[in-house]
Amino acid sequence: MNDFVFHIPTKMYFGRQCLDKLSSEMKGSGSRVLIVYGGGSVVRSGLLGRIKDQLRDDFTVFEHSGIEPNPKIGSIRIGADLCKEKDIDMILAVGGGSVIDASKAIAAGACVDFDPWEFYGGPRRPIEKALPLYTVVTMASTGSEMTCGAVISNDETCEKLGRGGFPVFPKASFLDPQLTFSVPRFQTAAGAADILSHVMESYFKKDVDFFMLDRMMEGVMKTVIVNARIALDDPENYEARGNLMWAASWAINGLFGGGSRQVWSCHPIEHELSARYDMTHGLGLAIIMPKWMRYCMKTDPETCSKIRDFGAAVFGASDENEAIAKLEDFLYGDLGLASSLSAAGIENIDAADMAASICKKGNINGYLPLDETAVTEILEACI
Amino acid sequence: MNDFVFHIPTKMYFGRQCLDKLSSEMKGSGSRVLIVYGGGSVVRSGLLGRIKDQLRDDFTVFEHSGIEPNPKIGSIRIGADLCKEKDIDMILAVGGGSVIDASKAIAAGACVDFDPWEFYGGPRRPIEKALPLYTVVTMASTGSEMTCGAVISNDETCEKLGRGGFPVFPKASFLDPQLTFSVPRFQTAAGAADILSHVMESYFKKDVDFFMLDRMMEGVMKTVIVNARIALDDPENYEARGNLMWAASWAINGLFGGGSRQVWSCHPIEHELSARYDMTHGLGLAIIMPKWMRYCMKTDPETCSKIRDFGAAVFGASDENEAIAKLEDFLYGDLGLASSLSAAGIENIDAADMAASICKKGNINGYLPLDETAVTEILEACI
Repeated sequence: MNDFVFHIPTKMYFGRQCLDKLSSEMKGSGSRVLIVYGGGSVVRSGLLGRIKDQLRDDFTVFEHSGIEPNPKIGSIRIGADLCKEKDIDMILAVGGGSVIDASKAIAAGACVDFDPWEFYGGPRRPIEKALPLYTVVTMASTGSEMTCGAVISNDETCEKLGRGGFPVFPKASFLDPQLTFSVPRFQTAAGAADILSHVMESYFKKDVDFFMLDRMMEGVMKTVIVNARIALDDPENYEARGNLMWAASWAINGLFGGGSRQVWSCHPIEHELSARYDMTHGLGLAIIMPKWMRYCMKTDPETCSKIRDFGAAVFGASDENEAIAKLEDFLYGDLGLASSLSAAGIENIDAADMAASICKKGNINGYLPLDETAVTEILEACI
Repeated sequence: MNDFVFHIPTKMYFGRQCLDKLSSEMKGSGSRVLIVYGGGSVVRSGLLGRIKDQLRDDFTVFEHSGIEPNPKIGSIRIGADLCKEKDIDMILAVGGGSVIDASKAIAAGACVDFDPWEFYGGPRRPIEKALPLYTVVTMASTGSEMTCGAVISNDETCEKLGRGGFPVFPKASFLDPQLTFSVPRFQTAAGAADILSHVMESYFKKDVDFFMLDRMMEGVMKTVIVNARIALDDPENYEARGNLMWAASWAINGLFGGGSRQVWSCHPIEHELSARYDMTHGLGLAIIMPKWMRYCMKTDPETCSKIRDFGAAVFGASDENEAIAKLEDFLYGDLGLASSLSAAGIENIDAADMAASICKKGNINGYLPLDETAVTEILEACI
C-alpha cells in the first residue's frame, strides 16, 4: 500500500434529467462557448440542436466539429487558434472520449503561445492553465469525463501520446445514459472492452495488493461483463447503459490506482496499433489483453494466482486457464470483437518493428517488465 | 436508477508521508489557524506537537480542545466565538469524526451572526459560507473527512441532529493509517461497526438496484470484516488499518447513495440512543442493525432476497438466517461489542417513549417505513 492523493474536482451530473442543468452550471465561466464535437451523429440525433437551444439565451456559441477517433493534433491546433481568435471563455465537449480528449488539449492549447503538440512530444511542456471545460458524454468508454488526461495522435510523427494536467479536469460532466442508446453495436462492444481493460491494468499489479480496491475492481469488472451483454441485446436498457456509463468513469479516475507505481502494459502496445492503423482503441485492447495474460502466465508462474482471483471473482472460473478462456468468450463471443489483427482486417504486421518503436524510450515497466522481445512475442500472438 | 450529482472537492492525501504536505497545502488559505481537537490523546501521542512544529514558521496557531464524543453545541459556540475574536483564517481538525464534525459546525458558525444551533434545530438555516477546513484523521469511522455533513448534539434539548452544506467540505484531508495504530480495541471495533453500517444503510434500499454500486458495496463490506479482524489482532498492521481508513471515507461519501431517495433506518434510532445515553455511535449501531434486519425479514418477506445477496457476497452465507447470524458473530464475537443495551450497561429503557421521540417529526421512511410501533418493537429487541 503506497502513498497517494485522490482529488477529482469535477462535478458529475448523472441521469435522465441532468442536461437540464447544463446552462446554469456553465454560467459561472463566462458567455462565449466553443462546442467541440466529432462527426454528424450528435447532429443527426438532435442532441446538438437541443444543447444549442438551451444555450441560446445566455451564451454566444461557436462550433468546432470533425474531431476524429484517435483525435489528431491538426484538429487541436485549429481548435486552439479558434479559441484565441474568437476570445472563447469556455469549451463544451459533446461526444465520447476522443472529443473530450481533444477538447482538453484545445482548452490547454488556447492558453499558450506555442504549438499544443509541445505538451506531448519534444519538450513535453506542463499544462499549467486551461479554459474551463464542460462535457456532455455520448459513449461509455474512456472515462475521460472524470480525468485530467488526454491522448492525442500525431500523424506526421506516427505517435499517439497521453498527457495530463490538473487544469484540464472538466468543471462539470453530464452523463445521461439515454444518450448512449444509439451507440452502434461495435462501438458499444469496443467501449466495454476499453472499460474492462482500464480496470484490469490497475488490478494486475506487483505492488502490494490493496484489499478494498481489488474487491471494488472485481465488482466493476463484473458490472461491465453483465451489463455489456444486456446492452448489446437490448440497446435501450437504461439500467445496463447507466451501469456501463458510470463504470467507465470509475474505471480510470484514479481511485483504483491507489498509489500503485505501476505502468500499464496493454495500453502502450495498443497505442502503437492505433497510431499506425487508426484502429479503434477498445478493439485493439480486446485483441491484446488475453495474449498479454498468457505471456505473463508463461513467463512468471506467480501471475497465475492473480489470474485465478480475477477469474473466480469475475467469471466464477475455477482456474487460470478457465479465467482466460472466459475472458476470451466474453470479448470475442458476447461482444463479437475480432480476436486477432487479421480478423480485424490488419495484415502484414511487422511485430519486431512495432516492438522497437514501442520500446524506443525504454521497456514497458508494467506488471511484468516487457522488453522488445517480449512485446514482439505478444504482438505475434495477436496476428 | 435515479438521477444524482457526485461532487467531492476535497483533496484526499493518503499514506505514511502524507502529513509532510500539510503546511504547504494550508498556505493558500491564510495564516491564522485554529486547531480543533478532543481529549489528550493527540497530545500524548505527540501528534499535536508534530503538527505545531510543522506550522510554526508560517502560521499563527490557536487551539480549541475538549471536543466531546457526540460533540456538543456548547463546544461549537465557544469555537465559533474564538474564530471571530481571533480573526481566524482556517480551521485544522485533528481527530476522529466528532472533532471533524465539530470543526465543520465551527467553520460555518464563525461566518454567521446567529447561534450555530440554528443550522440544526428551529429555523434550520442553510450553511452558505464557512472558513476553509483541513482535517488530520486519527480514527477510521465516520468518514466525515470526505463529506459535507456534521452531526451535533444539544444536551439542553436532548437532540442529536445532522446538517450538511457544500462550504464545509474539507479543502484537504490527511489520512495516515499509522495514526490509527494506537486507537484502542473498543474504538477500533465501534469504528468498524460504524463503517459497515454506513454501507448497509445504502445497500438495503427499495429503489431499483444499481448493479455496480451494489457490487462495490459488497467489496467494501467484505473489506471491513476481513481487515477489522486483522487490526484487532495486530493493531499495527498497516495494510489492515489502511483498508479500514480508506473504507471509512468511501462508505459515506455519497458514491454508494447513487441517487437513492431512501432515508436511512438504523441511524435515526441510534441518534436517539446517543442523545439520551451519550452512547458510542458505532456500538449503538452494532446493537440495532441485526434487530432491524430481523424486523424487516419478518415484516416484509421480500427483504429476504436482499439479505441473502448480502450474506452470500460478504460472508459466503447460504441463506438469510445464516447471513444475520454471521453478522452477529462478527459484531458481537470478532469485534467483541455488546449485543444488547443492557450488556452495554444501559438499563431501564423506555422503548415507547424513545420511539415517540424518534417519530415525533414523522415516521422513518427508510428501507421499510417504520412508525412508532415498529421502532418500539426494534428497540425492545435491543434491550
